[in-house]
Amino acid sequence: MVEQHITSAFDRDLEAVQAQIMKMGGLVETAIRDSAHALETRDEEQALSVRANDKAIDALEEIINSEAARVIALRAPTAVDLRVILSVIKIAANLERIGDYAKNIGKRTVVLSQGGHLTTESGAALRRMAREVERMLKDALDAYIQRDVELATDVIERDTDVDQMYNAMFREFLTHMMEDARNITPCMHLHFIAKNIERMGDHVTAIAEQVVYVVSGEKPAEDRVKADTTSIKPQEA
Amino acid sequence: MVEQHITSAFDRDLEAVQAQIMKMGGLVETAIRDSAHALETRDEEQALSVRANDKAIDALEEIINSEAARVIALRAPTAVDLRVILSVIKIAANLERIGDYAKNIGKRTVVLSQGGHLTTESGAALRRMAREVERMLKDALDAYIQRDVELATDVIERDTDVDQMYNAMFREFLTHMMEDARNITPCMHLHFIAKNIERMGDHVTAIAEQVVYVVSGEKPAEDRVKADTTSIKPQEA
Repeated sequence: MVEQHITSAFDRDLEAVQAQIMKMGGLVETAIRDSAHALETRDEEQALSVRANDKAIDALEEIINSEAARVIALRAPTAVDLRVILSVIKIAANLERIGDYAKNIGKRTVVLSQGGHLTTESGAALRRMAREVERMLKDALDAYIQRDVELATDVIERDTDVDQMYNAMFREFLTHMMEDARNITPCMHLHFIAKNIERMGDHVTAIAEQVVYVVSGEKPAEDRVKADTTSIKPQEA
Repeated sequence: MVEQHITSAFDRDLEAVQAQIMKMGGLVETAIRDSAHALETRDEEQALSVRANDKAIDALEEIINSEAARVIALRAPTAVDLRVILSVIKIAANLERIGDYAKNIGKRTVVLSQGGHLTTESGAALRRMAREVERMLKDALDAYIQRDVELATDVIERDTDVDQMYNAMFREFLTHMMEDARNITPCMHLHFIAKNIERMGDHVTAIAEQVVYVVSGEKPAEDRVKADTTSIKPQEA
């Protein structure tokens, strides 16, 4: 009974906070895209702007946290309403972290473009990986607003592709480093950029899992394990 | 002014919720230890008990969320008080996720012990890695209760050791898989156990970062990048 009764005042408050989440999501999508573009084109200026823009993302998280707390203080939500308003706080935390990873990529891009060692292939591969994470994030946020468990589950499953891309790049970087010691420093930077993107994927997955949790009250724990099992399958072929 | 004024009623409420966090932390430490022990000794029964015990961890997160929401509704905290009570929700989410990874290790242990391919060295290496994460978690929670930024920073830095252990194991598993195709399936399982432990380390780091944030109001973003840079250094030697 409690689960079905949602007051319209709570709904209005929730909509306002969710609008902020979408705004924050838009900034984070831009940060992912810009950081990957700056990396591929070695655009130091764009890399620096990603770092500067991260402040706006952090500020939005603070606003969302305060707003969510205000709603809790005002409406004292329980059951499903509480789950929803807490999901806002958790999703904002995930978005903030993804923004941080984009900022880190910006920092490394500046270092890399001064060293001048980035191969075209690595830049393109990293951008493809970032592009996939950006699409996943867009879908995860759409799934959140539409309470679309199917789309959220799809996002969770697609994280295995990102993991596979990361594993493939890790092996490639290792090979380059073993071939020639001069590759070690640039490959280390590239490896951590790849790792940052993979971590972004994890946080997008966490957002998608919040969607499943908000709608069903159940955590999609089984999917996490299943996703794990397939993530290095290509090596079997 | 607001930052310094903490009502004693809020303090009492906070202490009660923090006690639940410590209880949850204790259960999660046990889950890490037991899952690693079950893996090394191939103790299927213990592996199954880790899975069963995860329900108590999940239930505690729900209780902590409700309690934190009750405190917010009752005290309408702002500024530093709000930051503290939100940190409780975020730390509980991190602990829940670490518990999930321990449960996943339990699941894989059951599969592995039926296949019978685990080498003694892999089991011992994974247990060492889990042991380090368990120690980090203990310190992160102590740092939280004592608001000890120095200890929290130390935990954040130690996560690079866990990353290094993971990278070393990943390379070793790849070698085994390339040597003999029959190693592929068991090494895949071991790889994902290693990955689960590495992810646990990330969530412990997130808890330590919450400590820094609660105390200083600043996110330790610089440390995250610095930590990244050192994590494959051994290959340079």
